[in-house]
Amino acid sequence: MRDFTPNHEWLSINTATVRQSRGQDLPLTDIIEACARREIQAISPWRDQVAAVGLNTVSKLVKTHGLKLSGYCRGGMFPAATLAGTQAADADNRQAVDEACELNSTCLVLVVGGLPGALAGQAVHKNIGHAREQVFEGIERLLSYAKSCNMPLAIEPLHPMYAADRACINTLEQALDVCDKLDPAHTGALGVALDVYHVWWDPKLQQQIERAGKNRLLAFHVCDWLTPTRDLLNDRGMMGDGVIDIPKIRGWVEAQGFQGYSEVEIFSTLNWWKRDHAEVLDTCISRHRSAV
Amino acid sequence: MRDFTPNHEWLSINTATVRQSRGQDLPLTDIIEACARREIQAISPWRDQVAAVGLNTVSKLVKTHGLKLSGYCRGGMFPAATLAGTQAADADNRQAVDEACELNSTCLVLVVGGLPGALAGQAVHKNIGHAREQVFEGIERLLSYAKSCNMPLAIEPLHPMYAADRACINTLEQALDVCDKLDPAHTGALGVALDVYHVWWDPKLQQQIERAGKNRLLAFHVCDWLTPTRDLLNDRGMMGDGVIDIPKIRGWVEAQGFQGYSEVEIFSTLNWWKRDHAEVLDTCISRHRSAV
Repeated sequence: MRDFTPNHEWLSINTATVRQSRGQDLPLTDIIEACARREIQAISPWRDQVAAVGLNTVSKLVKTHGLKLSGYCRGGMFPAATLAGTQAADADNRQAVDEACELNSTCLVLVVGGLPGALAGQAVHKNIGHAREQVFEGIERLLSYAKSCNMPLAIEPLHPMYAADRACINTLEQALDVCDKLDPAHTGALGVALDVYHVWWDPKLQQQIERAGKNRLLAFHVCDWLTPTRDLLNDRGMMGDGVIDIPKIRGWVEAQGFQGYSEVEIFSTLNWWKRDHAEVLDTCISRHRSAV
Repeated sequence: MRDFTPNHEWLSINTATVRQSRGQDLPLTDIIEACARREIQAISPWRDQVAAVGLNTVSKLVKTHGLKLSGYCRGGMFPAATLAGTQAADADNRQAVDEACELNSTCLVLVVGGLPGALAGQAVHKNIGHAREQVFEGIERLLSYAKSCNMPLAIEPLHPMYAADRACINTLEQALDVCDKLDPAHTGALGVALDVYHVWWDPKLQQQIERAGKNRLLAFHVCDWLTPTRDLLNDRGMMGDGVIDIPKIRGWVEAQGFQGYSEVEIFSTLNWWKRDHAEVLDTCISRHRSAV
């Protein structure tokens, strides 16, 4: 297992972590400059943040600073109530692949979606089995396109508390079942993004990380689970402030040969987004060294 | 599958559902009288509610009205940071078995506990594997006592969002693994309480319900998952108001031969506990007939 204590060579910042600074939106260009000043080597930007300042601008800035992308957030949201909805999702996902290619990302992260309408507060139906079928078919279609662009797709199993509205793939086992069917040869074109926040509770976690193996472990995300957690979406903790044994999980992942970045992804309206982004980034660096 | 539309013969009220009426604590004696007036056949009371009015009083009242107990809430909370803590939990759990016997309950429900200290906001350690070992050993000890009293123990797998602070048994599969080890003969002395709120998202749910079989399906709890869910603990929905396909899950459970009560358990500071308990109970009856 790599020693993270001497420096932050393997730290990546998911740009949602500093989406806001003192409660105000922070442009991606400012985020990138702030990361570069701290010699952070990698980021993982969100599409809405990229769109707000322009893909070309981001692409140039990333190259200027020699930043790597540990992932690009995000494709997915496959289930739809209508054929037109499915076609729109497919087109949007192909565009996400194109953007990931332009930014030379390691992979495109997939948050696969849940029950159509649920995210807006009113699910169109309650058939999660059907949503899962639509996810499978959507990944199958996108994989064909992504392979032609050499962009790996990383299915992110989301915590079961997001099953209704954000992602109906909720365990690593379930994600790997999809990988087995769509990429039985373990080519690396399809794998998983493993976020400790979503999977730390899983009694089968170690077993399924071993099942995944190096070729399917495409991304590793860290933050922490707070007790109490006051909001289902935006109360993630800084590494070390919660109950997740992050080094243990990283050890399992690295035992499979994973040598990528530890990407910090914290959504926190209640705490970190209220603070100055400089403090947040500095804390990410120190906690990366002490608690990851 | 039984037809629930004609009446509410198979409705049970978990008394936490009307723990408050118009935001004020409602004594268990009042809850029981209100259930009896509506010809509700069964309840599942909480220990703190029983203690507040006295076990003998509750026992007499239950007998007077001929009420059944679909369960007794709850034993568990096994993991402890000290030997004294473990011994205190054991003693308390044996007392819970005694109370369940006095009230002639169908089973004692076990919410097994999580990381010691986490429920109070500060986990003593982060080793969920160790907590799970302590849970296993605690159930093993309690089972020996419960068998001598003929009181079945029902492990309730809790939603993974409670893994840290309330229960580190988080899937039906995991609960059944414990049952297999501690009661390989499927005697019925150890089984599960299946609450749709905790397990509805699980891609292996149908498979594991079939694995459980009749002898291990000791209780069936219903409520609904709301989108959005505004609080991790106390924002459960009334059946029909959320995204869970309850009849489908009840069908799977009854296909195994389960013929017990559908127990309504709703924690809702934000909605139902603010209303008058009469309205809540009447709504439970109508939704039991239309949405369960």
